[in-house]
Amino acid sequence: MTNPTTLGSYDPPIPLAEQISHEWMLDPAITYINHGCFGARPRVVSQSQQRWRERIEARPIELIDRRRDDLLSDAKAAVARFVGVQPQDFGFVTNATGGVNAVLQSLTFEPGDELLTVNHVYNAVRQAMRHVAERSGAKVIELPIPLPVQSPQQLVDAIAAGLTDRTKLVVVDHITSPTALIFPVKQIIELCEQRGIDVLVDGAHAPGMVDLDIASLGGAYYSANLHKWACAPMGTAMLWVRPDKQAPIHPTTISHFFGEGLAAELSWQGTRDMSGWFAAPDAIAYFEQYGWDRVREHNHQMATWVQRMLCERWAGIGVEPTTPLDGSMIGSMTTLRLPERMREVGETPIELHDRLYDEFALEVPIFDWDDAWWIRASCQIYNTPDDYEKLADAVLKLLA
Amino acid sequence: MTNPTTLGSYDPPIPLAEQISHEWMLDPAITYINHGCFGARPRVVSQSQQRWRERIEARPIELIDRRRDDLLSDAKAAVARFVGVQPQDFGFVTNATGGVNAVLQSLTFEPGDELLTVNHVYNAVRQAMRHVAERSGAKVIELPIPLPVQSPQQLVDAIAAGLTDRTKLVVVDHITSPTALIFPVKQIIELCEQRGIDVLVDGAHAPGMVDLDIASLGGAYYSANLHKWACAPMGTAMLWVRPDKQAPIHPTTISHFFGEGLAAELSWQGTRDMSGWFAAPDAIAYFEQYGWDRVREHNHQMATWVQRMLCERWAGIGVEPTTPLDGSMIGSMTTLRLPERMREVGETPIELHDRLYDEFALEVPIFDWDDAWWIRASCQIYNTPDDYEKLADAVLKLLA
Repeated sequence: MTNPTTLGSYDPPIPLAEQISHEWMLDPAITYINHGCFGARPRVVSQSQQRWRERIEARPIELIDRRRDDLLSDAKAAVARFVGVQPQDFGFVTNATGGVNAVLQSLTFEPGDELLTVNHVYNAVRQAMRHVAERSGAKVIELPIPLPVQSPQQLVDAIAAGLTDRTKLVVVDHITSPTALIFPVKQIIELCEQRGIDVLVDGAHAPGMVDLDIASLGGAYYSANLHKWACAPMGTAMLWVRPDKQAPIHPTTISHFFGEGLAAELSWQGTRDMSGWFAAPDAIAYFEQYGWDRVREHNHQMATWVQRMLCERWAGIGVEPTTPLDGSMIGSMTTLRLPERMREVGETPIELHDRLYDEFALEVPIFDWDDAWWIRASCQIYNTPDDYEKLADAVLKLLA
Repeated sequence: MTNPTTLGSYDPPIPLAEQISHEWMLDPAITYINHGCFGARPRVVSQSQQRWRERIEARPIELIDRRRDDLLSDAKAAVARFVGVQPQDFGFVTNATGGVNAVLQSLTFEPGDELLTVNHVYNAVRQAMRHVAERSGAKVIELPIPLPVQSPQQLVDAIAAGLTDRTKLVVVDHITSPTALIFPVKQIIELCEQRGIDVLVDGAHAPGMVDLDIASLGGAYYSANLHKWACAPMGTAMLWVRPDKQAPIHPTTISHFFGEGLAAELSWQGTRDMSGWFAAPDAIAYFEQYGWDRVREHNHQMATWVQRMLCERWAGIGVEPTTPLDGSMIGSMTTLRLPERMREVGETPIELHDRLYDEFALEVPIFDWDDAWWIRASCQIYNTPDDYEKLADAVLKLLA
């Protein structure tokens, strides 16, 4: 293991408890440093979901018809406190992409309208933007912001430079998926609101990674996953809309409560398994036993250390920092550009991934972005410094 | 118990096995004769889903990213055989309403276009039609077909009379939700296809209730639930589209595979719990142990008997048959019109429902339709004749 003293103040965090990984459902045979992709579940969360399912299946009509509003209300109250919204201004959706689709497909665009985003946008959201643009004659503008970046202001400036009189909507990630950057969404929203332009924030990675107070950001739309960094059951996400913007917004599945307001419409999107939504408060509570501030700080400190450690260990193969080494622009993930030489190890990012998985039991995403290969390391409380040391070693071994 | 001999040949069916209800998750304290609403689950199906969830959560990326296509392919193969489609022509969705929304929202309508349906339409689908009509300037035409009906031809004739040169789409239930009628969808499709009009069938109740061969019906679009009469986990449904009609149809949530074809697009609608979809074959297999033909026949025979028995027992309070007593127009549900006098028992259908639930532990839907109150009894293999005798008695006691 790297001696942390060589890293100055960038020490790995103290574990929040002993053997925390035993509380999780992940296979201990795999070194799992891809929490960012689908999250992961503490066993107690899955057990809570299973208890809800048993209750629902014992009396289906009573639970998800007659008592649905009360049960959703309880679950929403816990989520509302956690992310800083009013219960009447949001509802559960299956995933953040679905929430983004609900907004994009509800809005009306005219030929020539511009939908603005950046090249760090999540690919599914890119596709959803492309779809609504194609069918309305609007245009998607994707601003390139190459790495490295030095400051949040650089990101604000880049977006400011892309606004035009035809910009109708800005779509921005709170934390970007490929590049793991925290975008200064509050400043971006202020900038756009001054110009009368609405902002749709894709907060897929935000709840649980950053301390979130959605309503205070001031934007029009915020879609977020609870199954990623808050570790609720898969299929648990939320769509929040500022009260003055709710009227035209509908779920992607229109159902009985069409026309009765966004929260009512979202409360019934056809028959579905609501057990995950009902269990969401238990995911929030799981982390509360450690303290959410400590959890976020642990994961952020780990990501900051990982970024620096990997840059040190991989300096010889040409890996350089792409965001400030003090961790000021990242949360609990860090993305690094892999050197061209990695193409000797595999012909595609998938091949390189598969070698890391098959030969080292490492689960870590490798992908193309901006004409290079990148690797993203995620840090959740079940991870230990050894996980990332193993990654550092494995890449060097593959290149040796 | 009513002496079956008074019913001539309309005997209740012989149970498929002893104590079948023990295999189900329903609370035995409730007499559950509302299978049609959300279905119900055999315990083995929920256990299968839970095993899939354990596998997914142990290795999330491996299961729902790298192995997803294979796992979906296995699940789809079993479903495809069951409902008579090719795997490449359909995908899983959360519920039939979602599938209907995907089609309606993908199509383009012009001002003045007519979307035709009948007043037996499921309310959520009515709302989805209203939504796409409102935003395009199209019109929804809802043909009234009052009960009683005597023959399938009456239904075909009613729809034929509603077709105009402006009809762009006919939306019809295979089995209607409020009125439990089997619509002659093959004849309706033939009629419409001759006129160059596409038909979207809402088969919410069809898989498991009727022997289904979707592709042979010849329609353009078929959306169906697997969580209702096939008893797959909640949130398991399917959308099939005839090959020549697939190009413009997209899931309600656009994601990574946008533009790669309907089946590919449906294979990834954002992160979600796929355990229910993977477990769908085990729901089909559960019924196979009894034989699907026997299951359908059992449930149909029960519904036919229930319809006649209730009409006999309730003749004195003014309940009359609304479909042929030979059961030729129903599957495994029967709907009866309640007399005006029921309003003495409760001020609303919900109040009447609640009295049946609270005082008799009966779970059965009571609702408004076509300016009257109706009751719908569902028959699944866990039901016994006593369940419906209890209902017959309870209604008479409430009126006494």
